Amino acid sequence: MTSAVPPCPPADDRADERADEPGGAPPLSPGRLAADAAQALAAVRARTPLVQCLTNEVTTNLVANALLAVGASPAMTAVPGEAEQLAAVAGAVLANLGTPGPDLRACLEPAVTTARRAGVPWVLDPVAVGVLSVRTRLAEQLLGARPAVVRGNASEVLGLAGLTSSGRGVDSCDAVEDARVAAVRLAHATGGAVAVSGAVDLVVAGDVAVRVSAGDPLLTAITGAGCALGALAAAFAAVTDPLTAAVGSSLVLGLAAERAASVARGPGSFQVALLDELYGLRPEHVVGLGDRLVVEPARTGARRAATAPVGAPA
Amino acid sequence: MTSAVPPCPPADDRADERADEPGGAPPLSPGRLAADAAQALAAVRARTPLVQCLTNEVTTNLVANALLAVGASPAMTAVPGEAEQLAAVAGAVLANLGTPGPDLRACLEPAVTTARRAGVPWVLDPVAVGVLSVRTRLAEQLLGARPAVVRGNASEVLGLAGLTSSGRGVDSCDAVEDARVAAVRLAHATGGAVAVSGAVDLVVAGDVAVRVSAGDPLLTAITGAGCALGALAAAFAAVTDPLTAAVGSSLVLGLAAERAASVARGPGSFQVALLDELYGLRPEHVVGLGDRLVVEPARTGARRAATAPVGAPA
Amino acid sequence: MTSAVPPCPPADDRADERADEPGGAPPLSPGRLAADAAQALAAVRARTPLVQCLTNEVTTNLVANALLAVGASPAMTAVPGEAEQLAAVAGAVLANLGTPGPDLRACLEPAVTTARRAGVPWVLDPVAVGVLSVRTRLAEQLLGARPAVVRGNASEVLGLAGLTSSGRGVDSCDAVEDARVAAVRLAHATGGAVAVSGAVDLVVAGDVAVRVSAGDPLLTAITGAGCALGALAAAFAAVTDPLTAAVGSSLVLGLAAERAASVARGPGSFQVALLDELYGLRPEHVVGLGDRLVVEPARTGARRAATAPVGAPA
Repeated sequence: MTSAVPPCPPADDRADERADEPGGAPPLSPGRLAADAAQALAAVRARTPLVQCLTNEVTTNLVANALLAVGASPAMTAVPGEAEQLAAVAGAVLANLGTPGPDLRACLEPAVTTARRAGVPWVLDPVAVGVLSVRTRLAEQLLGARPAVVRGNASEVLGLAGLTSSGRGVDSCDAVEDARVAAVRLAHATGGAVAVSGAVDLVVAGDVAVRVSAGDPLLTAITGAGCALGALAAAFAAVTDPLTAAVGSSLVLGLAAERAASVARGPGSFQVALLDELYGLRPEHVVGLGDRLVVEPARTGARRAATAPVGAPA
Repeated sequence: MTSAVPPCPPADDRADERADEPGGAPPLSPGRLAADAAQALAAVRARTPLVQCLTNEVTTNLVANALLAVGASPAMTAVPGEAEQLAAVAGAVLANLGTPGPDLRACLEPAVTTARRAGVPWVLDPVAVGVLSVRTRLAEQLLGARPAVVRGNASEVLGLAGLTSSGRGVDSCDAVEDARVAAVRLAHATGGAVAVSGAVDLVVAGDVAVRVSAGDPLLTAITGAGCALGALAAAFAAVTDPLTAAVGSSLVLGLAAERAASVARGPGSFQVALLDELYGLRPEHVVGLGDRLVVEPARTGARRAATAPVGAPA
Repeated sequence: MTSAVPPCPPADDRADERADEPGGAPPLSPGRLAADAAQALAAVRARTPLVQCLTNEVTTNLVANALLAVGASPAMTAVPGEAEQLAAVAGAVLANLGTPGPDLRACLEPAVTTARRAGVPWVLDPVAVGVLSVRTRLAEQLLGARPAVVRGNASEVLGLAGLTSSGRGVDSCDAVEDARVAAVRLAHATGGAVAVSGAVDLVVAGDVAVRVSAGDPLLTAITGAGCALGALAAAFAAVTDPLTAAVGSSLVLGLAAERAASVARGPGSFQVALLDELYGLRPEHVVGLGDRLVVEPARTGARRAATAPVGAPA
């Protein structure tokens, strides 16, 4: 099976213009972002950050193994009293709402509040939010603790932002670009990054959006790829800023997926190879991936602005 | 490792006779059943039915991946309030009693009742019922909502029907044929199909029984093969009648297992290959499998009638 | 990837001396221990002991599959009312504290108490004990039911014995030898064996210590290797004495890991191959592994006595 990554988009002119604005931050070029992502991968491997995962029961094993493969140290402690103990000393916290039973719910709010107070970045993965009622209320409540990264599919990001979505459980029935406005709104509310997963991922932070072209369709043929991405975003958030964490984790998982797909016979061997490839991935594999990135203003997707939802709040 | 499937039994004369009875349904031949199973597989791939799984914690990941591999869309939502939300809109519901903790128990009755009312077929997998007390009471309670398919091993089916069994947890210590009378009784009580898993599976629905010769002993060397079969039966039940769902899922998992075993080095690589093969299986691989099926009257197994339990309730 | 097992240490002179003491037990030589371990493996395969696992949610699937691969029959029943039902009839019980939520906690004490009364050996895996408060209190409470085997890393064994450790969740920050005094103390308190996992495992029972050189660093690159070892120790404890169970399970998992590492491309394929190799391992592969074992007096590690913690309780 070969990679199904779309052709690399050309560099985004607007982003280059933005970098030249007077008083602006140092130029945020695709090449610079890829280099930052590579450096973050190196930092994860060097520091092995403890990632406290409050996550769903379906994919805990894959999440833990993905974190180990990338060099982080997973803890999956969802016991009230212990969850916040670990959150206070962790490098990052993952809050994945895939199976929000009573025990997990009892842990989430104390853990993310503790993380927030302790300056520990946390990642919100709003699985099926917007479709199912219990977790939707829960996600809204957690947002106040301002996650460094929100990672979801388009329907979930729309649901989290309170906009209409057409999701069905964990399946997104919305296109990534349809969630751009919601992502911008959420990113402004949290002060962090919002990553919308799809064939091409979209990451928004502040006024910047980055489109990431990496991955393989087999990622949708196994359970937990999205959960693993959220966990990797947490590992990266332990060592770098939210935007780099979201872009870097997307690049790393996407590249590993492409390599895994090239040797896989189907989803079973793909999942196995994905862990092998994550484990073998080195910063030098990532540093040159600037051509997989498009940097652009957050509010108006360069080529896709015309497809933004009409009438959606700006 | 090569396939250990027993030689294909010859076509069943009795079933052919039954097909000729005046006023009978269209002939239910092995070839027709296999064709129906192939068509059901095509329908699952075309419609990607949402299968809401209330299932056990040991094998959730395999169950979800098996559903994805066959083309369905798994949801594993065991949160009270959400479980019945999904049950109402799902294509099918799976109720697997492998780890019936308080949270799962709180979801099961509302979910299957909702499914029943909404006309959504559901599958009962009575793991270790008859041996362990909590789940045995639970299963009896759920039966009132009339599952489209019951799938268990011989001991579990005997336990569910209230007959004596010699099971030990998830291990069946009874032969498939020993559960025939129990399966007939259960099938009449529910109006659906009852599938008894073993070296040769037995499926009973109404007055018909089908023996399915497909699979590999490695299925018993991994955890979750039975759970995956129950889940596939649910996916099939979303698109076809209970008998075809039970027979079709058994054929499909069995064929995938045979193919997987031919490339596996042991149970680890077998599980990986099983998902690969399920993913790669196409309806044309199934349509000609009539020679794996024996159709016969439910109450008297053609060649094995002499081994039916003496004194068991008819 | 090749095996990273350290060179086999020479036979331990002290152990040979001890064997010659007047009134002593039959000589406990490395060769004899390996032969006993091989015999225990044969017994597990012949008797398929039921191992009732009260274990953590992250690694249940691997634990169950490892037990199946070695020939045991896993039950993962953590439902109050059922857990003690199974404990009473099981060959052994595993109590793994990795994710001690309310449901599991409600099962643990009744199950191990029942096991103790019924003469069923049980294994305590004190995951992250000493670091996290809830499970530390829980472990101390369970110790009264005297586990046949305690299996943990150095930090966990130190934590369980009430000594200072520098653990961080499931990561051990202490060397195996640093936990020797704690292991001796625990072994005397329980009357069973205490296994400290590390690059070289240390098993203490009564006045004897055994160092086991088997394994591969990839065991630390997947989640659940320690949990699987605890489960194998339980399977072995069902058919042999605690010391042989602890040493034998360590040898068997270590040897399977070495073989798996020789064909693995990374942690994903390693885990798959580990199950394949466990499944394929035969007693004749184990019987000659005496050169992987060092038998010595428990209180003074022969070559490493100088590194024992100064001032630690004797």
